[in-house]
Amino acid sequence: MTALSIREVGPRDGLQNEDPVPADAKVRLLDALSGTGVGRIEAVSFVHPKAIPQMADAGEVWARAKKNPLVRYSALVPNTKGAQRAVAAGFTEIEVVVSASDTHNRRNVNRSTDESLDDIAGLIDLLHGAGASAEVIIATSFGCPFEGDVDPRRVAGIVDRLVADGADRVAFGDTTGMGTPRRVEDVVGPVRDRHPDLPLLLHFHNTRGTALANILTALRLGVTEFDASIGGLGGCPYAPGATGNVATEEVVHMLEDMGYDTGIDLKALLEAGRLAQEIVGRELPSGVLKAGPRIPL
Amino acid sequence: MTALSIREVGPRDGLQNEDPVPADAKVRLLDALSGTGVGRIEAVSFVHPKAIPQMADAGEVWARAKKNPLVRYSALVPNTKGAQRAVAAGFTEIEVVVSASDTHNRRNVNRSTDESLDDIAGLIDLLHGAGASAEVIIATSFGCPFEGDVDPRRVAGIVDRLVADGADRVAFGDTTGMGTPRRVEDVVGPVRDRHPDLPLLLHFHNTRGTALANILTALRLGVTEFDASIGGLGGCPYAPGATGNVATEEVVHMLEDMGYDTGIDLKALLEAGRLAQEIVGRELPSGVLKAGPRIPL
Repeated sequence: MTALSIREVGPRDGLQNEDPVPADAKVRLLDALSGTGVGRIEAVSFVHPKAIPQMADAGEVWARAKKNPLVRYSALVPNTKGAQRAVAAGFTEIEVVVSASDTHNRRNVNRSTDESLDDIAGLIDLLHGAGASAEVIIATSFGCPFEGDVDPRRVAGIVDRLVADGADRVAFGDTTGMGTPRRVEDVVGPVRDRHPDLPLLLHFHNTRGTALANILTALRLGVTEFDASIGGLGGCPYAPGATGNVATEEVVHMLEDMGYDTGIDLKALLEAGRLAQEIVGRELPSGVLKAGPRIPL
Repeated sequence: MTALSIREVGPRDGLQNEDPVPADAKVRLLDALSGTGVGRIEAVSFVHPKAIPQMADAGEVWARAKKNPLVRYSALVPNTKGAQRAVAAGFTEIEVVVSASDTHNRRNVNRSTDESLDDIAGLIDLLHGAGASAEVIIATSFGCPFEGDVDPRRVAGIVDRLVADGADRVAFGDTTGMGTPRRVEDVVGPVRDRHPDLPLLLHFHNTRGTALANILTALRLGVTEFDASIGGLGGCPYAPGATGNVATEEVVHMLEDMGYDTGIDLKALLEAGRLAQEIVGRELPSGVLKAGPRIPL
């Protein structure tokens, strides 16, 4: 059985794109998830509370959450200040984001992709100096809602620069669900060939139904690390009512049936999914949560 | 570009699993769909109106619908009487169903799979005598909600018998969305090897998110014919609120991006999807309908 590494991003990426919920609920969700057998959790982000009120209590949430020694926790940060807060809170795995598309990057942080990469080079040094690792998430890797298709060579060039600047891991974000098996092949294939030892993580949205087909394609290309969000928590900011993150239950359900080992207990995961629904007070898009697994547990 | 044959099943399989709608609405939907470029449409079923009130007006609907000479239309029938009605209405492509799982078959028609196969052998002769072709849909091919996994050898044995009995086409139905890429390989692979020239059609439900991953797997096995339902019309009878048929928009959107030729105009298809939503008065599960295509048309 091939072991896969699933990172649960519901507590951060999921809840950051939902209406704000109390710190208590976030702690309960983190604790439920860290008991499912999942190996990695994106726990919180350290961002300005005015920009992202959903994460204003990140420090409190993290301080109160159980720390499962078998789980690798990570935090997302937008800048030096966030990185310092994350390191001070005890995180040793830090994520930063840059968009492959210039337009998307400018809309997010009012600078070009290249300018952000300059900032990130400094952040990587700062994190390494503090004993933390640096993962860079390349948003809009499979397409940009403003520019349309993103040239895979542009994505590959960004990866080259990040590797040169010392990034420990790279993630490709399918920010608005524009990924398809063809795009996965075009973007992931050349990067895997060029940097076979670079830890590569894929983050798919299921906005147009393709997430599991994309994961299947990536598995064939040798990728073994995937993001997923409990219940499919976190909507799509560009299309109200549409699905965002692929649901962890759907990923685990399909991959375990195919003989992959995610280490995750689906029953515990479904309990966490029901908790996530209760916390946000709406039905989440996860099909496995709605219909149950193909064979009842 | 590899040409694929998509059969649109929304007017029959979709609407049969929704609350009844007027004949007028059904005719409008059929006419909208036959103008999308789709090559095949499952139009109606000729079933007892007490058993399935949604299809009580099948004759009227079919008589009033435009007949696009570029579209192959089919009708589903449960028995001799239905077959006679379908042939009398002018259909030359007829579908009948049998379940791979004995329990599912008994619950549906109160006889064993073998008993149904005996009936179907007679139906095939009757249809051939009337100048019509006979497709047999094997329901629960990828799993049964009552029995769980269905042995692929059992499915293969049913196909052998159907071929011997003269079936013109065979379809594998993922009746309750239990299909996964592994199940597709296990069920489809051996049948393709044994009957390479048998027209084989796959019918997936997206109940647990796997439909497009399953289609991707089947494409790799050489399958080129797939069912899909406009908007994802037709719920899942075993899990209220859950998704049933895979949405035609999602299938076309992904496959065309991968370079396959479905012959379908996505813009016209999305208009038909909006009509389908209007007709049933609820939001349908199609992600492409909700969020729009990855690149605006």
